[in-house]
Amino acid sequence: MFSKLFRPVAENSYKIENRFASSQTAVLKSIIKNEPSGPSVKTDIPGPKSIELMDQLKKVYNLGATQYIVNYEKSIGNYVVDVDDNILLDTFTQISTMPIGYNHPALLEVFKDQQNIKSLVNRPALGVYPGMDWPKRMENILGQVSPKLPKITPMMCGACSNENAMKSAFIAHKMRDRGGKEFTSEEKNSSVMNQRPGCPDLSILSFKGAFHGRTVATLSCTHSMYIHKLDIPSFSHWPIATYPLYKYPLEENKRENDEIDRKCLEEVEELIDKNKKVCPVAGVIIEPIQSEGGDNHASPEFFRKLQEICKKNDVALIIDEVQTGCGPTGKFWCHEHFSLPHPPDIVTFSKKMQMAGFFHSDEMTVQQPSRIFNTWMGDPGKTILLETIIDVIKTQNLLDQVERSGKRMYSGLQQLQNEFPELLHSLRGRGTFIAINAHGTNLRDAIIKNLKKNGVQSGGCGHEAIRHRPALVFQEHHVDIYLDILRKVLRDLSESK
Amino acid sequence: MFSKLFRPVAENSYKIENRFASSQTAVLKSIIKNEPSGPSVKTDIPGPKSIELMDQLKKVYNLGATQYIVNYEKSIGNYVVDVDDNILLDTFTQISTMPIGYNHPALLEVFKDQQNIKSLVNRPALGVYPGMDWPKRMENILGQVSPKLPKITPMMCGACSNENAMKSAFIAHKMRDRGGKEFTSEEKNSSVMNQRPGCPDLSILSFKGAFHGRTVATLSCTHSMYIHKLDIPSFSHWPIATYPLYKYPLEENKRENDEIDRKCLEEVEELIDKNKKVCPVAGVIIEPIQSEGGDNHASPEFFRKLQEICKKNDVALIIDEVQTGCGPTGKFWCHEHFSLPHPPDIVTFSKKMQMAGFFHSDEMTVQQPSRIFNTWMGDPGKTILLETIIDVIKTQNLLDQVERSGKRMYSGLQQLQNEFPELLHSLRGRGTFIAINAHGTNLRDAIIKNLKKNGVQSGGCGHEAIRHRPALVFQEHHVDIYLDILRKVLRDLSESK
Repeated sequence: MFSKLFRPVAENSYKIENRFASSQTAVLKSIIKNEPSGPSVKTDIPGPKSIELMDQLKKVYNLGATQYIVNYEKSIGNYVVDVDDNILLDTFTQISTMPIGYNHPALLEVFKDQQNIKSLVNRPALGVYPGMDWPKRMENILGQVSPKLPKITPMMCGACSNENAMKSAFIAHKMRDRGGKEFTSEEKNSSVMNQRPGCPDLSILSFKGAFHGRTVATLSCTHSMYIHKLDIPSFSHWPIATYPLYKYPLEENKRENDEIDRKCLEEVEELIDKNKKVCPVAGVIIEPIQSEGGDNHASPEFFRKLQEICKKNDVALIIDEVQTGCGPTGKFWCHEHFSLPHPPDIVTFSKKMQMAGFFHSDEMTVQQPSRIFNTWMGDPGKTILLETIIDVIKTQNLLDQVERSGKRMYSGLQQLQNEFPELLHSLRGRGTFIAINAHGTNLRDAIIKNLKKNGVQSGGCGHEAIRHRPALVFQEHHVDIYLDILRKVLRDLSESK
Repeated sequence: MFSKLFRPVAENSYKIENRFASSQTAVLKSIIKNEPSGPSVKTDIPGPKSIELMDQLKKVYNLGATQYIVNYEKSIGNYVVDVDDNILLDTFTQISTMPIGYNHPALLEVFKDQQNIKSLVNRPALGVYPGMDWPKRMENILGQVSPKLPKITPMMCGACSNENAMKSAFIAHKMRDRGGKEFTSEEKNSSVMNQRPGCPDLSILSFKGAFHGRTVATLSCTHSMYIHKLDIPSFSHWPIATYPLYKYPLEENKRENDEIDRKCLEEVEELIDKNKKVCPVAGVIIEPIQSEGGDNHASPEFFRKLQEICKKNDVALIIDEVQTGCGPTGKFWCHEHFSLPHPPDIVTFSKKMQMAGFFHSDEMTVQQPSRIFNTWMGDPGKTILLETIIDVIKTQNLLDQVERSGKRMYSGLQQLQNEFPELLHSLRGRGTFIAINAHGTNLRDAIIKNLKKNGVQSGGCGHEAIRHRPALVFQEHHVDIYLDILRKVLRDLSESK
């Protein structure tokens, strides 16, 4: 199926104009109407108009991470268009937050409804005064996509969702300890002054390489890059276990990788045991794929055994699906790939879901008011968008599309890894949530830079991974365009080496 | 001016039907068209339809704090309408987040614009790929309402804004310590594992009675109520100073209150000194009025001297204007009442501002990317609403309206406090951001409950305060309606005592 795409091409015959010949026909099958037939790069990126606006923005704003200025009106489907009219095929989608691409017609339709507009302009305190549509909307989301958990708590962003998931684990732990007894006066009085026993020594166990957010407590569970953490005080005694880092390809390294699993799980148990007397572990927080830390995968067996350890020790298992959730792995939740015997205690979400929050068990549902709480408790506008997104994913079978596009991308990247072993290694992924490593950070950064020059917006993670985070509407012909451009970039880099 | 309203009325002649006679004429001057002429209560609250929907919601959601279900379509201006068609005059406005009332026509107009709709459906990562309208929007907001600070960092909610304000203070402190030197390898490596020196022992000084959010680190600065804090681990060594708690009326207790100021400031200095060797204070976080902790006010002199202490000790002054910002005190920012000789280092905002974030000095602007950062870095849809809100506030002179309504409310409450000294005391406030205490929590709760029965949505804070948080479109005739109902409630309670 890749014969045309991967047939060796004499360097000189490779012309930009012909690059999309094969995809021109495929465009006819496009899910998204009016998508361009391929990328088109007219200026340096950032181009002159981007630079002008960035200079303006620099005066009022920290611009450190800004790449260029987007024309969100013109962007469409899988193509992001910048203010200099460069059209980029987007495999990164706003750090993985655009599930059905730019300006999807179903989403544009949503706010033609006057009632939905009223949901935008009346900022409700949903924990105290929910609107009349709220019960149905919450039921609908739970009914359609909850990972078998009965309750939902909406929040505003991924970090806050993880903060409140951790708080739920702490509260559940202490409620169990308390065995139905009332809070003591000592607990009440000491808590107000940040002291024991009201504010107890409890911990969350996290993993090396993890990313769970940039608020202070989620940073204590984040260990992907020093730049996120430097100079910020931390809960220095919260235990940090080793996340399995496998050798690839998996099928050639099974014995070794199984041994890695065994050792990591042993460490988790040891850390839980060791902390029992000093600072008990109330929860384990883990990503199904470490998505900022380098797209590090752990096996389904690892997760099943981790859950077993958590259950045995009365520790809440918090699965952070902020980046993996909402379909990119080919299942709605990545942890569905693991066939866990029980649902996790808490599953947190944000990004592609537009709204943030967490699903949780009854045990993780805090009974008293004001404990897991804030002013807004979610956002009706984002919830309406999510409902539409879920509808589009279901009616258009986009999870199947992810599977098909993912397979095509995986095989294509495998072929490129075989052709350019001096550049690429360790291909891995689920659905289109695929990563491949370059040999070193500099090379990885050069690939990403050259992809952009040639019309592809991509992203890195960890020290040397290229991570793919396309929308769920990224189809086979988009894969072909991407692979075709990547091949050119790799060939150029290989020749210049 | 209150002669009609406060003329003693024989109990029997007090009729519900006549209650709004005086305000009927005033309605003609209403800023908001189509507002009801007054509240109307038809059922218990929650009524049967609310209860039905709450039962439905209870299955999927922690309902602990929910009061009733709102019909956001029918709610208008200063009136919140519930699903049972009860119409309540709203002095609480969704925990103080609705600056220009329900369904304001200017806000409903905003999303008729197709370009603004596109801002809603394309979830941008604003730190990396801002839209072409973003520089102008940020400039516009800064130019119009920044409290003399040159930079803005948008966030998603109040707690995240405070988390990142605190992080900015930590980073600025360490950058100053480092004196331009690069991070050491030891700092980099230790930070990833939550250890010193990369994750240093630094603290934020907060005040007893303060509320800065419910994430774990902002909870370490929150001391208003034990229920927020119980069972959550805390930074137990962060210093907590005493917030001045004045005797009222202020004019009769000046000497005593000045002494309170002096003692509190002395304590702040002592705590900063004491912590210098153990866990230096990088920032002081303070509300201009402690808004959850009981509407506790501190004097302008207190704030000026606090800033002096901060400057002397190289400590960042973070003013948390999440609840006080956006006009309710009669100035756009409450701390403008204090005539500080310099702007604060950081001012955080959320709630009425619709978008969240913080304004900051150049010194508090973190240079490196990814340190003060997250995926979304704000929300274009909320920013567009804020721009419209600022426009309405300016063109309709709503800050003057707040002054006028505030004065009327203050005098009216003063009169009621004089009439019912066995029920009320310690009236205080700025603009319409006014509170009055009841003698004890039970009485306060009874007043709030009875206000609701009689058509007023109000709110409490601290242990015995009734806090007023009306919208900026709360006019003199709304004040009259409110005071009239409050008088009835107080009279009934007084008689039943």
